[in-house]
Amino acid sequence: MTDPAPYFDRHVFFCTNERAPGHPRGCCKEKGSEALRDHMKAAAKEAGLGKRVRVNAAGCLDRCELGPTLVIYPEGVWYTCATPGDVDEIVKTHLVEGGRVDRLMLYPDEKVPAHRARKAAAAD
Amino acid sequence: MTDPAPYFDRHVFFCTNERAPGHPRGCCKEKGSEALRDHMKAAAKEAGLGKRVRVNAAGCLDRCELGPTLVIYPEGVWYTCATPGDVDEIVKTHLVEGGRVDRLMLYPDEKVPAHRARKAAAAD
Repeated sequence: MTDPAPYFDRHVFFCTNERAPGHPRGCCKEKGSEALRDHMKAAAKEAGLGKRVRVNAAGCLDRCELGPTLVIYPEGVWYTCATPGDVDEIVKTHLVEGGRVDRLMLYPDEKVPAHRARKAAAAD
Repeated sequence: MTDPAPYFDRHVFFCTNERAPGHPRGCCKEKGSEALRDHMKAAAKEAGLGKRVRVNAAGCLDRCELGPTLVIYPEGVWYTCATPGDVDEIVKTHLVEGGRVDRLMLYPDEKVPAHRARKAAAAD
């Protein structure tokens, strides 16, 4: 079974789900995911990535506590990002250079992002 | 560079983008994509696929003329689907059995779905 060639080289899905205020899991939208998604679209364009890389909004990716979250396929690498600077780093290091931004990556068993845990530990 | 294990075994993104009525490219929403997405979520649950397979809505996947469209990662296989029966076939053949539904698959260079072209030819 040979699948067709990929339509996009990389396809980013940015959670922009919104839950009612006060929901215990929170949501990516209340943490600013729409503005960060817009920032990523602009940053990808500015980096000259063109039509082979697409940045989309998506419904709830079910990792709400870690948000704002995004996933990049086909590699299936997940990130959390809190600021435009985080997004810029993902665009440059992952999408342009093909590397990984370790401090923002999410692991399958992770319930709290490692970088947050480290930051909290450093603040103790 | 070793990426983390996948968080989902298969991740489906269903375009539910809406454009203004009369837009020349049309949109997936006006062709019933939201109801088809809901149907796929229910069909995947009924098939016992569980939490390792996730069905999400997505913004414009930019293949509007072929819609309603969906893409399944990590394999990056695209489908068009017009009816709940189409969705059921994708769930059973692709998501459950790991096969492909040839008549609904979209190829990178495709501007009009092959199954529609064949159907139109048969009707001539």
